[in-house]
Amino acid sequence: MEHQGFTLWFTGLSGAGKTTVSRVIEQELRERGMKVEVLDGDVVRENLSKGLGFSKEDRDTNIRRIGWVCEVLSRNGVVAIAAAISPYREIRDEIRGKVENFVEVYAECPIPVLAERDVKGLYKKALAGEIKNFTGVSDPYEAPENAEVTYHSDRETVEESANKILKKLEEMELIPMREMAQ
Amino acid sequence: MEHQGFTLWFTGLSGAGKTTVSRVIEQELRERGMKVEVLDGDVVRENLSKGLGFSKEDRDTNIRRIGWVCEVLSRNGVVAIAAAISPYREIRDEIRGKVENFVEVYAECPIPVLAERDVKGLYKKALAGEIKNFTGVSDPYEAPENAEVTYHSDRETVEESANKILKKLEEMELIPMREMAQ
Repeated sequence: MEHQGFTLWFTGLSGAGKTTVSRVIEQELRERGMKVEVLDGDVVRENLSKGLGFSKEDRDTNIRRIGWVCEVLSRNGVVAIAAAISPYREIRDEIRGKVENFVEVYAECPIPVLAERDVKGLYKKALAGEIKNFTGVSDPYEAPENAEVTYHSDRETVEESANKILKKLEEMELIPMREMAQ
Repeated sequence: MEHQGFTLWFTGLSGAGKTTVSRVIEQELRERGMKVEVLDGDVVRENLSKGLGFSKEDRDTNIRRIGWVCEVLSRNGVVAIAAAISPYREIRDEIRGKVENFVEVYAECPIPVLAERDVKGLYKKALAGEIKNFTGVSDPYEAPENAEVTYHSDRETVEESANKILKKLEEMELIPMREMAQ
């Protein structure tokens, strides 16, 4: 069976659970027979955007490149999953305008919770003024206004968030239903 | 039918007919039911490599990015066709090492012939010393030593060159045979 390509675009602050949830989705879609590529921040910085910094201009360039790869993959029947902070609404909407099936997923989590988790120790430093251009602290983050899915990683399990997304993709008829017998 | 992905990597001097032949191949493979993306110099400079120049380092970065997109497309069942000068053998071989099905196509044409055609008027300028880093004139071009296909655009028609490539791809069992009835 040929499946339809689409782009699942995660956006949200550092540590909000974009990569974690995207990896669960990736696994689940593979099990349903789909072709999937995850383009997370690390993959992309390494392969497309080495040398770019964190100014607005450099961030926009980085996000546009991810968007273009998503566009090319999607139109060839692949599910492209982007999991980068992508803080600016205008650029996300620009990509939405180019990609045929664009599904925006907002990984929402309040900053105090992120600062308490602080897996990489970055929020502490950012809040102490030691990191410039840290999204949500010393650099803007513009939350989506019309995301197809929003999940709240401070009060949902990873599985709950992933299920919300899968349900939405099923409703949009972008993915096949999971077989009942498991 | 699911088809196998692969990368068809054109290399050769400016004006040697990389894009022209690649577009014929693209059309032909689409007619055989395959998914195809052409990544030529212009597409890539616009979407992946704006701001890069023509130093060895910048050229290498540009080619590595194209290579990575080819790798991602190929492993998802898409035929990626790269049509960039890609003058350095080492980088081409590096990409060959990463892409599962890598088919190198050398568009060969002697410089005097290119200078006489000079579609874009670039060779005249380069030979007069007005363009720095012009491949084949003021910048190196390292011809492939083990290209799967070599065509000679000074003494073959576009159709002959394209047929050579298609025959090789059929031999390698990367594309289905064309139906006899036409």
